[in-house]
Amino acid sequence: MREIDGKVVEGSFRAHQVPGIDLKTRPAQLAAVEKWLRSYKPAELFDEAGGPAPDILALCPRGDRRIAQNPHAFGGKIRKPLHLPALEERALRLERRGAVRAGSMGELGKYLKEVVTLNAAGRNFRVVCPDELESNRLGAVLEVTERQYAWPVPPTAEHVARDGRVLEILSEHTCQGWLQGYLLTGRHGVFPCYEAFLPIVDGMMNQYAKFLKTSLEAPWRLPVSSLNYLLTSESWRQDHNGYSHQGPGFINNLMTKKGHTYRIYLPPDANCLLSTADHCLRSTNYINLIIAGKQPMPQWLSMEEAVEHCRVGASIWRWAGTHDGEDPQIVLAGCGDNLTLEVMAAAQMLREAVPDWRVRVVNVTDLMTLGIPQKYPHGLDDGRFERLFPRDVPVVFNFHGYTAAIKQLLFERPGNGRFEINGYREEGTTTTPFDMQVRNRTSRYHLVMQAARRMAALHPSLAARAEELVRGCERSLSDHRAYICERGEDPAEITKWEWSGR
Amino acid sequence: MREIDGKVVEGSFRAHQVPGIDLKTRPAQLAAVEKWLRSYKPAELFDEAGGPAPDILALCPRGDRRIAQNPHAFGGKIRKPLHLPALEERALRLERRGAVRAGSMGELGKYLKEVVTLNAAGRNFRVVCPDELESNRLGAVLEVTERQYAWPVPPTAEHVARDGRVLEILSEHTCQGWLQGYLLTGRHGVFPCYEAFLPIVDGMMNQYAKFLKTSLEAPWRLPVSSLNYLLTSESWRQDHNGYSHQGPGFINNLMTKKGHTYRIYLPPDANCLLSTADHCLRSTNYINLIIAGKQPMPQWLSMEEAVEHCRVGASIWRWAGTHDGEDPQIVLAGCGDNLTLEVMAAAQMLREAVPDWRVRVVNVTDLMTLGIPQKYPHGLDDGRFERLFPRDVPVVFNFHGYTAAIKQLLFERPGNGRFEINGYREEGTTTTPFDMQVRNRTSRYHLVMQAARRMAALHPSLAARAEELVRGCERSLSDHRAYICERGEDPAEITKWEWSGR
Repeated sequence: MREIDGKVVEGSFRAHQVPGIDLKTRPAQLAAVEKWLRSYKPAELFDEAGGPAPDILALCPRGDRRIAQNPHAFGGKIRKPLHLPALEERALRLERRGAVRAGSMGELGKYLKEVVTLNAAGRNFRVVCPDELESNRLGAVLEVTERQYAWPVPPTAEHVARDGRVLEILSEHTCQGWLQGYLLTGRHGVFPCYEAFLPIVDGMMNQYAKFLKTSLEAPWRLPVSSLNYLLTSESWRQDHNGYSHQGPGFINNLMTKKGHTYRIYLPPDANCLLSTADHCLRSTNYINLIIAGKQPMPQWLSMEEAVEHCRVGASIWRWAGTHDGEDPQIVLAGCGDNLTLEVMAAAQMLREAVPDWRVRVVNVTDLMTLGIPQKYPHGLDDGRFERLFPRDVPVVFNFHGYTAAIKQLLFERPGNGRFEINGYREEGTTTTPFDMQVRNRTSRYHLVMQAARRMAALHPSLAARAEELVRGCERSLSDHRAYICERGEDPAEITKWEWSGR
Repeated sequence: MREIDGKVVEGSFRAHQVPGIDLKTRPAQLAAVEKWLRSYKPAELFDEAGGPAPDILALCPRGDRRIAQNPHAFGGKIRKPLHLPALEERALRLERRGAVRAGSMGELGKYLKEVVTLNAAGRNFRVVCPDELESNRLGAVLEVTERQYAWPVPPTAEHVARDGRVLEILSEHTCQGWLQGYLLTGRHGVFPCYEAFLPIVDGMMNQYAKFLKTSLEAPWRLPVSSLNYLLTSESWRQDHNGYSHQGPGFINNLMTKKGHTYRIYLPPDANCLLSTADHCLRSTNYINLIIAGKQPMPQWLSMEEAVEHCRVGASIWRWAGTHDGEDPQIVLAGCGDNLTLEVMAAAQMLREAVPDWRVRVVNVTDLMTLGIPQKYPHGLDDGRFERLFPRDVPVVFNFHGYTAAIKQLLFERPGNGRFEINGYREEGTTTTPFDMQVRNRTSRYHLVMQAARRMAALHPSLAARAEELVRGCERSLSDHRAYICERGEDPAEITKWEWSGR
């Protein structure tokens, strides 16, 4: 059919799109389209019942020759679990809580190095990375493998070779595509990325999440390894790169997807990160998003405690509050490593200034525990949720990302008005690490002020001390501002701050 | 400096990155880096106080030769407002509410055609589009201009020429880049796109929103035209494309940004869409997201009503409820055109089945009205919000996008537990339009069941009639399922449904 109504159809965009308009009401148009379609001789292709003709069906491959059953591409059929290092051996030893400072990514680098070594023979583990692995502090991996490179290796290059388990390319899209293909052919991988730039692949992640959901509905499909994103170089520590590199929005990207297709982890210290990585590398059929920093930070939990904290996903750190965390008047909750640090510092300020106030510290490492279990498989049941966050006790919640994520999770929790939520408010620039907390109102001083205001509102007899606390924090904030404007760095009381509790 | 610690620095990646490690504690490393930096002869470049040397400063361009003041690129300085058609002339005439059916995009196409004509001489308006303009039903524009094409024009091409105001390319990234440059050089444009695919440019939009926020803080900058996204080919009407084309996540992408940098509109009918487009094309310094369908839909408001509805952003449609919408026992709220249609059908079912129930219908066309005004300039103040949604009256809210968007906006509203929120639950496939509503539990039947359950809970004396309604809806849903499985299309009671009210 060359034309309808004088418009070219065959060989034009209309053949792909809408060859005729309003066929139901315009018989001439319908006849023209019918004539065109009949030119493909459907009678030769279909049988009487409208099914494909036997000779067409005979052309279809059978069994393992069918495309989705091809043994080389049917990932679930050929996947072998990874060999993983014993967590206890990789544990960071704590002499005293908060005293050891370590960068979570450096520790994970050593762990991943071992994963590469243990699975060298299997050749079924890869790291794809749009940034320099070393800049993300995962350089240890390159002690045992190389960056794979197809073109001639330039003379100044290091750790670049024709063979290697690392694929570095400054294209998040390419990394995403490579990793999807790698997983779907039965293998394993991680995708470290600067936090602010992973939204670049939001569109591709959407489609992969849709694929996962749909494949779970097909009983013959077998599990493939999870797609593990590792967001490092966090928004909070872009001291030199500034505002363009600050954006935790991938959390929100992922949280539009079906609750059973993804997990989001924000381990508060290195041991929790290792436990999380161990869990994610064993898991199947999820998109796992792990967010942790690369800068040295105080360490909170022994490996044994970390494993248990990660198993539950959210727990009371009794040792971090006052009165053993029991019967609290106020809860300080942290989710995310830098944000947990501020919670700890705030808890310490309260313990020192008003030791009789009953303060509980809660840490959330598995974000989805906050949602209701009807929607999110990891959601805490009502009983546990209210054991952590008692119904009538105000909660000051310090979150790594945009507050929207917490709000959508807590919406269905009764009495959610007790939660005061802080997070990244899209305020950033090239500034000191602590100033980022100040600008986004997530700093220890802001938390103490929030706690004091809530305490005064609930307990009028504490108003005078609360007011004193608030004014002290205001002074500290204005002193900090003056100091960084003059010196360009945070004062020692911040950079050398140490946990003095148990 | 060729090397530090035996590692090549000059001419290698380390020169760009981290040339030496731990300079503060390792004097030899520090000395090596210092020696290297001194090889650039800073004494020749800086004066005693550390500022640039006078001869360097003298090289800097001045006045309009400075890059950001260049008159050809300083959009705010050279921007001229568009000539826009009179809205009343483009209005769709309603004889009776709901009786006229029209496709919003088709009407907008005629409006944009006139925008192109009125501004032909100015050559300062463009449409960038990753999809076929005709497939988005904006084809009317091509009656007065062409798709611009730099290469030789192929013989079967239509509306393709060396000059034209339309840029079509199947790359959302290219469209975004083109439009940003076009706006920043003082001109105007719209970016129509399939709804599910705009998240492809989430990363670019993030950076543009950051630019807008920052530029608003620079007093010398002058306003540029808003970046107008026009999401058509909505998730709810991907009858043939199916699940991969279903995803309203760009709303959530945008909602992580600063509340004063963007607006989100979901006009319920064609006149509201025209009024919204008129507003957005006059506005400056925003990212405007407009979401409206291309399929024929019942029309609700006259142009005069539409302009007023859009001015406020959310209002009570008194004529659509019972008892004039006063003193309601239940509120049905809709946001988004397809979702509003289901609200209207549900209101009609309730009016017919239980006319003594006091039902109010609210429509939200400006999404950000739901947020608190402290965060969102368009947020309704408490008084108006509670006049629309009285504090103790349950609200069944039917939303076009993911429910997360509504939850994050309502979180700070007191008593938000009264809102029951429906939206796209990431359930989709290639199916009938009404089945999409059923799968995502946003259908008229689901709304009636929700309303009936809430009514029965609050007014035990109505329980028997509520139960009857629920059972009737369950039957309708199961009949619908059987019908579409057999026939592959929605039954006439859905496709031919008509508003019977005033």
